[in-house]
Amino acid sequence: MTDKIALEELKALGWTTNKDKTAIHQSFKFKTFIEAFAWMTQAAMLAEKNNHHPDWSNSYNRVDVSLTTHSAGGITKLDIELAKAFSGI
Amino acid sequence: MTDKIALEELKALGWTTNKDKTAIHQSFKFKTFIEAFAWMTQAAMLAEKNNHHPDWSNSYNRVDVSLTTHSAGGITKLDIELAKAFSGI
Amino acid sequence: MTDKIALEELKALGWTTNKDKTAIHQSFKFKTFIEAFAWMTQAAMLAEKNNHHPDWSNSYNRVDVSLTTHSAGGITKLDIELAKAFSGI
Amino acid sequence: MTDKIALEELKALGWTTNKDKTAIHQSFKFKTFIEAFAWMTQAAMLAEKNNHHPDWSNSYNRVDVSLTTHSAGGITKLDIELAKAFSGI
Repeated sequence: MTDKIALEELKALGWTTNKDKTAIHQSFKFKTFIEAFAWMTQAAMLAEKNNHHPDWSNSYNRVDVSLTTHSAGGITKLDIELAKAFSGI
Repeated sequence: MTDKIALEELKALGWTTNKDKTAIHQSFKFKTFIEAFAWMTQAAMLAEKNNHHPDWSNSYNRVDVSLTTHSAGGITKLDIELAKAFSGI
Repeated sequence: MTDKIALEELKALGWTTNKDKTAIHQSFKFKTFIEAFAWMTQAAMLAEKNNHHPDWSNSYNRVDVSLTTHSAGGITKLDIELAKAFSGI
Repeated sequence: MTDKIALEELKALGWTTNKDKTAIHQSFKFKTFIEAFAWMTQAAMLAEKNNHHPDWSNSYNRVDVSLTTHSAGGITKLDIELAKAFSGI
């Protein structure tokens, strides 16, 4: 669904794909809960701005992010762009 | 680890326990991502204030919250109090 | 710069203009700081989404919002739309 | 109301007092609105945790913070501590 070049680029930014390549993941770690949640706030604003939202979980100082385009059943340009935006925070 | 009365009280607020009663859960649903994240912001402030933090995940307008006291390996007063605070948002 | 109808509509939503009609204002009051800041978080996401941002201040449970288009030196459609979005939170 | 040593320490962290020394101020500047608001989110959590809240305003990438203890009519230990916490973000 997405070209190889884009996925290679994301790999360089720390993102991995799941087995069947339907989603990309990254785990972000911070010093404290406060820092983790501040990062989530920035990510939430970028998500809302892009009209595309992550599936994510948080446990204290860790944020696990998963990006997929549910309507397409896989990774699309929307995920690539949001992933890059998240990596740019 | 926690008395029955407290758990009954939480049940009335929509919280459920897992099978081995080591954690309490609740799924919160909102109209939009923005409303879901605003709720999370309030919850984050209450969590930080209580020095006790949820394991939680978010997918668009849904927030799944799990509370447990990792150091105690089960539900403690800290979870009961944070659960009540979350239900009061 | 903006038509009268739009300003009348905003007036009905509680917004007022300053003397020289270069900005619109509204003061929002909440029960607690937490609720005030959760409202600000929603407003911040809407602002970022609209690529237009408020001049605002917060003191405990009060949020004072001022909207103007600096580049235009007055109220524009951008302010009208953000004001409506804020009133819809 | 506060000892000189504490105020000197804050000065080194970029805080200034107003003329009649009833409040301390600092202006924080960021690259974007998103970064400014993420900083505010961290500060909001620290404020709520300390049960003491800033008077602050935001305009795009700038956050102006003023700290005073209204009930005491001046600067107290509460302000000193919150100022340090904000500077530590």
